[in-house]
Amino acid sequence: MPPRSQDERPTLEDVAAYAGVSRSTASRALNDDAYVSSRSREKVLGAARELGYSPNQAARSLVTRRTGAVAVVLSEPESKVLDDPYFATVMHGAYRELAATGAQMLLMFVDSREDVPRTVRFLEGGHVDGALVFAPHQGDPLPTALRLLRLPVVYGGRPGSVRRGVHAVDFDNRAGARLAVRHLLSTGRRRITTVTGMLDHPAAADRLAGWRDALTEAGLDPAGLSEAGDFLMPSGERAMTTLLRRVPDLDGVFAASDAMAAGAMRALRAAGKRVPTDVGVIGFDDQPTLAPAMDPPLTSVHQDPREQVRHMVRTMMSLLSGDNVRPESTILPVTLTLRDSA
Amino acid sequence: MPPRSQDERPTLEDVAAYAGVSRSTASRALNDDAYVSSRSREKVLGAARELGYSPNQAARSLVTRRTGAVAVVLSEPESKVLDDPYFATVMHGAYRELAATGAQMLLMFVDSREDVPRTVRFLEGGHVDGALVFAPHQGDPLPTALRLLRLPVVYGGRPGSVRRGVHAVDFDNRAGARLAVRHLLSTGRRRITTVTGMLDHPAAADRLAGWRDALTEAGLDPAGLSEAGDFLMPSGERAMTTLLRRVPDLDGVFAASDAMAAGAMRALRAAGKRVPTDVGVIGFDDQPTLAPAMDPPLTSVHQDPREQVRHMVRTMMSLLSGDNVRPESTILPVTLTLRDSA
Repeated sequence: MPPRSQDERPTLEDVAAYAGVSRSTASRALNDDAYVSSRSREKVLGAARELGYSPNQAARSLVTRRTGAVAVVLSEPESKVLDDPYFATVMHGAYRELAATGAQMLLMFVDSREDVPRTVRFLEGGHVDGALVFAPHQGDPLPTALRLLRLPVVYGGRPGSVRRGVHAVDFDNRAGARLAVRHLLSTGRRRITTVTGMLDHPAAADRLAGWRDALTEAGLDPAGLSEAGDFLMPSGERAMTTLLRRVPDLDGVFAASDAMAAGAMRALRAAGKRVPTDVGVIGFDDQPTLAPAMDPPLTSVHQDPREQVRHMVRTMMSLLSGDNVRPESTILPVTLTLRDSA
Repeated sequence: MPPRSQDERPTLEDVAAYAGVSRSTASRALNDDAYVSSRSREKVLGAARELGYSPNQAARSLVTRRTGAVAVVLSEPESKVLDDPYFATVMHGAYRELAATGAQMLLMFVDSREDVPRTVRFLEGGHVDGALVFAPHQGDPLPTALRLLRLPVVYGGRPGSVRRGVHAVDFDNRAGARLAVRHLLSTGRRRITTVTGMLDHPAAADRLAGWRDALTEAGLDPAGLSEAGDFLMPSGERAMTTLLRRVPDLDGVFAASDAMAAGAMRALRAAGKRVPTDVGVIGFDDQPTLAPAMDPPLTSVHQDPREQVRHMVRTMMSLLSGDNVRPESTILPVTLTLRDSA
C-alpha cells in the first residue's frame, strides 16, 4: 500500500483534543449536526480556527460527492484565458469529461493575486467536491493556499509554486522541444534560435531546456540564440525581429507556441526571409485551428489538451471514490506534426 | 411601493403549519440549526418536501450573501458558447462586473436538456447567492425549473420560456432591425431580403419582426424574402445562396448576426455580386473583432454585451441587498454603425 500523503495538517483528533471534547462531539459540531450544546460547538469551532483546521464539508464529500460539482480553476489573466484556444479546448474537454461522470463543472477564473482569497473562501466552503486547477505561474499563491484545504485537487501542468505532493497531469514539454530542434538539425539547420514563453511558467522553462538539450547534444552553442516572448503572437513577432538583428545568419526557429510561430513568420516575411527555404520554423501546440491554416502550414509539436483533461478527471474520480492515490505527476507524451514550415 | 412578485411558492409559514410546529422551529430545522428534536426535524423536512419548499440556504443568502458566489449559467450547446464572441464578451464582462462587487463568478454550461436537473440541483443546494442566466431557446426547461427555486435570477435577453415575472436585461432587437432596413431603404434598395437566426430564439424573432415592420411601413411586401439561419457563418452562406436563386434581383440583405453576414458576403461573391454596388449588406452585433475586419467592412447594428452584463449585475446586487425590485425587462437601446457594406 502506498503511504498516505505526509502532510502536517491538523486532524479531527487534534481539534477534539484541543477543545477537550470527544472525537464524535467534535465531528458533530463541525458538521453542523444537532444535539451539540452551543458551548461545545463554540469550543470546537474555536479550536478548529486556532489550529487552522478548515471546518468545511469537503472531507465528507470525499466519499459521498455531496455537492456533485467539481471546480475548474484557471489561474491566468482572464483576458488570456478567453482568447487562448488552449484554454477553450480545456474548457470544452473538462465540461464533456465531467458531464460524463455526472459531475457539474463550475468554471472559476483567478485573474490576479487579489482574487485568490475570494476563490479559496469559496472552495473551502464545501460547495465543491474537488478542483481541477491550472496555475502555472511561479509565485502564484493559489497552490499554496489550496494545500491548506481538505479538498481534492488535480493540477493541469505542474503548478508554478508547490512542486511536491500534488496530483498533476503534464505534457512532456522538454521532450517535445528536443523533437522539434532535432528535426531542424536533421534538415541541415545549424543556427537554430528559439522564442520562449513566459519563463516563470514551467512549460516554457521545459521547452527552453529541451531546445538547449538538442543543441548541446549536437555540439552547438546555444548562447545568444534565445529571446523571451509570452506565448502570444505579438511577442513572437517582436522576439523574431530582435533575433534577426542579433543573429542575421539564423536558419531555424523553434517557437514555444503556435501563436508566437505565427508572429515570427510575420517578422521573417517583413525581413525578406523565405520559410522554409531560408529559415525553418516549428511551433508548439499544434492548434487545429491555427497550425494547418498558416502560410506555409506550420510544423508543430502536437499535444492534446483533451487527453490531459481526461487524465485529470480520471484522477479526480479516484480521489472522490476514496481511493488512496499517491500524489504524482503523470507525464503525457507529445509528437511532432510535420508540415511545410520546416 | 411596488408589490412583491405574486408567485405561489410555499412559504416558511406554510411549511410550519403543515408540519404542526412553530415558525421558528421550522426555520431552525430547515437551517440545520442545533436544538431541534429529530422528530420535529423530520416532520418539517417531510412537509417541505411535500409542499415543494426548497430547503436550501438561498433565502438566507438574500441579505447575507452567504456564499459570495454568483453563477453565470449559459444554456446553449457548449460548443456554441465557446466559439461565439458574444458569449466570450459576456464571460469577460460578467467576470469583471462581479469581481468589482467582490463576488466570485461560477460559470456553468447547460449543454442540453439532460443537464438541467444536475444544474438545478446544484443551484438549489445553497452554494450560490444568485444566478445570471442566458437561456434564450423556446422549450428550454431551465427557466421553469428556476422559478421553483428561492434563488434570485436575472436573465440576459428574454428567456425563451417563462415570459412574465422575471428580471431580464434585453436589447431592443426589433428597433435595431428596423434601423438596418430603413438604412437600406434610404440608399434606394427595394428588394431587401433577410437571413434570420434560430426562430425559437426571441432575439431572432424580434429581428425578423423589425425587418418586416420596416418593409411594411415602406409599402413593400416581405413575402418570400426571408430565409432561416442559425446565427453562425455557414448558415448565412447557405441561406444567401437559396435567396439568390429565389430572388435573383435582390439588392439588399439584413443578416441577424455578423457571422451570417460574413457567410452571405461569401455567397454573394461566389455569385458574382459586388457589395455594396449590387447588394447592400448589414449585420447585427457589430462584433469588434469581425465587423470592421470584413471586406468590405460591415455596416452593423451595434449592441454592447458588456453594458447588458453591467445592468444584470446591478439588478442582482439590488436583489441580494434585499431591495424589493419589481420583476421587469430592461430594454437597452442599439445603434447602427455605418461602414462600407451598405
